[in-house]
Amino acid sequence: MILILVTLLLQPAAPQAGEAPEAGAIRALLARQEADWNRGDIEAFMSGYARGPALVFTSGGRVWRGWEEALARYRRNYPDREAMGRLSFSELEITLLGDSAALALGKWSLRRAKDAAHGVFTLVLRKEPGGWKVVHDHTSSAPR
Amino acid sequence: MILILVTLLLQPAAPQAGEAPEAGAIRALLARQEADWNRGDIEAFMSGYARGPALVFTSGGRVWRGWEEALARYRRNYPDREAMGRLSFSELEITLLGDSAALALGKWSLRRAKDAAHGVFTLVLRKEPGGWKVVHDHTSSAPR
Repeated sequence: MILILVTLLLQPAAPQAGEAPEAGAIRALLARQEADWNRGDIEAFMSGYARGPALVFTSGGRVWRGWEEALARYRRNYPDREAMGRLSFSELEITLLGDSAALALGKWSLRRAKDAAHGVFTLVLRKEPGGWKVVHDHTSSAPR
Repeated sequence: MILILVTLLLQPAAPQAGEAPEAGAIRALLARQEADWNRGDIEAFMSGYARGPALVFTSGGRVWRGWEEALARYRRNYPDREAMGRLSFSELEITLLGDSAALALGKWSLRRAKDAAHGVFTLVLRKEPGGWKVVHDHTSSAPR
């Protein structure tokens, strides 16, 4: 019973104590993205990001813009399931910034047959008519 | 004359075309932080960050929390003017997220007598009674 409770509490989509209900929607989005990635569906994964040219990804001192460009880059860098590996998110903290914006901090890890990487992400999300979407993604990797 | 105009336009504190007036206050904050750092005043630099234990800094896959802890870490890592070098921010983009939150994306560079580094920062700011304060700082470095 305790194990079941702990498992439920660790579900990323479950709202955490003290969190606003909207935070649960953002946890659900990130849980869907994890599952999409691990199913090898990059386009579904990318549906968590805001469409259009204003989307920002930044990592390692570089900035990339645009939803289409991000999709193309993911397809190029992760051409098959082996390259995609297994993605997992943990230690999510969601902070609502007013009614239609939010900040998410979390850890990511990617395990592949030949290597592994992990790090931290900061996401800024906006609530659009279609639901919460990531508009800004700053991802860092821990030194290998 | 053209040179003077260009110089004025490049002032980080000047509001940019199409930006909300509040963005100017955030540019002014970052310009003050640059000046504080380059004057060797880490405590004044830190006044741009929200006080308290909830402040988040993240970089290179690690997360640090708390204003006091950040101040102590800066003092340890940058014990004198030579270690502090010359900091500059550029390519600032400010996006307001409702009335009391904002996102800032920019590039940073630090030049020192013996080395140099540069990268990108993502800041989330909240408007507090004392003005805009950074509550979340995700900084990446370009590979050396």
